[in-house]
Amino acid sequence: MTEQPWIAIDAMGGDEGLAVMLAGVARARRAFEGSRFLLVGDEAAIREALVAHPNLSQNAEVVHAPEVVGPSEKPSQAIRRAKRTSMGVAIDLVKQGRAAAAVSAGNTGALMAMAKVALRTLPGIDRPALAAPLPTLGDNDVVMLDLGANTEVDARNLVQFAVMGAAYARTIMDLERPRVALLNIGSEDQKGTDVIRDAATQLKAAAHLPLAFTGFVEGDKLARGNHDVIVCDGFAGNIALKTAEGTARFVADLLKRAFTSSIRSKVGFLISRPATELLKHHLDPNNHNGAVFLGLNGIVVKSHGSANERGVATAIGNATKMARADLTRRIAEDLGLEHVARPARRAGTPKPQDAAA
Amino acid sequence: MTEQPWIAIDAMGGDEGLAVMLAGVARARRAFEGSRFLLVGDEAAIREALVAHPNLSQNAEVVHAPEVVGPSEKPSQAIRRAKRTSMGVAIDLVKQGRAAAAVSAGNTGALMAMAKVALRTLPGIDRPALAAPLPTLGDNDVVMLDLGANTEVDARNLVQFAVMGAAYARTIMDLERPRVALLNIGSEDQKGTDVIRDAATQLKAAAHLPLAFTGFVEGDKLARGNHDVIVCDGFAGNIALKTAEGTARFVADLLKRAFTSSIRSKVGFLISRPATELLKHHLDPNNHNGAVFLGLNGIVVKSHGSANERGVATAIGNATKMARADLTRRIAEDLGLEHVARPARRAGTPKPQDAAA
Repeated sequence: MTEQPWIAIDAMGGDEGLAVMLAGVARARRAFEGSRFLLVGDEAAIREALVAHPNLSQNAEVVHAPEVVGPSEKPSQAIRRAKRTSMGVAIDLVKQGRAAAAVSAGNTGALMAMAKVALRTLPGIDRPALAAPLPTLGDNDVVMLDLGANTEVDARNLVQFAVMGAAYARTIMDLERPRVALLNIGSEDQKGTDVIRDAATQLKAAAHLPLAFTGFVEGDKLARGNHDVIVCDGFAGNIALKTAEGTARFVADLLKRAFTSSIRSKVGFLISRPATELLKHHLDPNNHNGAVFLGLNGIVVKSHGSANERGVATAIGNATKMARADLTRRIAEDLGLEHVARPARRAGTPKPQDAAA
Repeated sequence: MTEQPWIAIDAMGGDEGLAVMLAGVARARRAFEGSRFLLVGDEAAIREALVAHPNLSQNAEVVHAPEVVGPSEKPSQAIRRAKRTSMGVAIDLVKQGRAAAAVSAGNTGALMAMAKVALRTLPGIDRPALAAPLPTLGDNDVVMLDLGANTEVDARNLVQFAVMGAAYARTIMDLERPRVALLNIGSEDQKGTDVIRDAATQLKAAAHLPLAFTGFVEGDKLARGNHDVIVCDGFAGNIALKTAEGTARFVADLLKRAFTSSIRSKVGFLISRPATELLKHHLDPNNHNGAVFLGLNGIVVKSHGSANERGVATAIGNATKMARADLTRRIAEDLGLEHVARPARRAGTPKPQDAAA
């Protein structure tokens, strides 16, 4: 087997603590043969927690960082002490080329700000976007971006998001020509804002891009499985993502109430438990964890702050797939940026200093 | 009993046809004692369909309109022949003071455009907004606006939406001081766009308004029952509403699949059927039908195009409650516009000609 890229883990981020993060890393290691990890944070604490994971210990190095970014710390504050924090050091390992991807369950705003400053955007990309796979009724997940990195965008940004999202779908979901739609409040040409209509016009004209533009999609059709990539600004994307999460939980709560409302319904529930477990599995956010900042010189994955061991492993698994598939290079190529150099020391990510040359 | 206001019904709008509309009207009549209806559309067709509803016939008048607005007709086209269409005539009956409210299941864009031109906005209101009650886990529904009338807004618009939504909650939901939140992508003060932050500042400072401003709410907390009114621009509102609808259907579809996946789960489903029926009832959009355009000199309610008899009756019921509670006057009062004249001829809505004086 060829030597696999290292993944840097912010071991201190996340609401669930170091033990859950490391259990997640250990789980991801078992799922991806040849995985190797740089565990970033308080060295003594990490070494103590590693005792429970002897196999992981053999495939991991500890990188000390004395400080932690707070969950509600302002990005502007966090960034000033980036080099001393577990989050900042994990990103810096990607910048140095020592790791092909960084994974953190910490403060999203701080992670985004640090990643942008340290890794810079790819040539030709004005703004990075936060992308994540969401469940559908179809065979594949749908990739949605931007999910909150940019509250306001122009048409050019949306077109770049489309190209990046399609590269993600081609690389991670193995689709040759992903179907890309713009999120809008109607499917007719005249619907929405000027920005969205302009982006649609540009995408319609861009037949050379390795994607199939399918027009506008409305909020009620996100999960139908008719699209592979859904593009929007970070405000609409965040609203849609969180509304979907909240509604799924709302329905699950109603269902729970309904099933516990009488002896009869309780009995029915127990009998059909395998079915409801299947539903739970499909909707569990831990099975869809791992949003990625696309458009940077390197891969940075955000794990949900409240993800459990399995959720952390899912996020690290996504990061591993992206690193092994060399996602950053694929995006750069799709943007017509073949001059971006390949990484020299380790496989997995272009070195930012080369990319910026 | 005091004489109740007339409700004008666009009998020809909606995907389900005249028979379903009239069955819905008949159902609403039974639920609201003293209801009286002006049924607008093709006179011969309506009279024929009325034969099936003798009780309704005694409490309804037919108003002939020879034409119908098409479901995908552009608002600018529809408005030119408004006075000949069932939708336009229904709205005109409100303008003339012959009806206190109009209900249509037709083309939303055309309905909005016609209502705005015919009824004009209340003094002090720049733009009307589309509002609708949505289900929550709490005791009450939550009113959300704008749901698609205005894709882009300024802070002043959002503050006006807050006042109108609160008036709706006070009038229809009988809440003294409704809790009003702004939809945003985070709960911290610095989150979101300038427009949203400005609106928050203005609402915080407006202690004289009959509402309790509760700050920002995220998409995953819409249905928690912690707010009575949620305010947003029409783009975000439409995305949130449709994403919630789509997700609820998505979960229901998954559930259906899960329950039919094995004999065992089918048996469990049959036993717990009363429970799942309860869930279905709670999520059925026909139980929450009836969006209203707030901010006009008169009440115009949009019924969902695909609503069934029960859905139509729900929408008409909402319109009836608004008309009987004199919602338009309440909104005008809350806006500090006590100079808006009370209607003379019929109870229920201010006469626009007086309001404009």
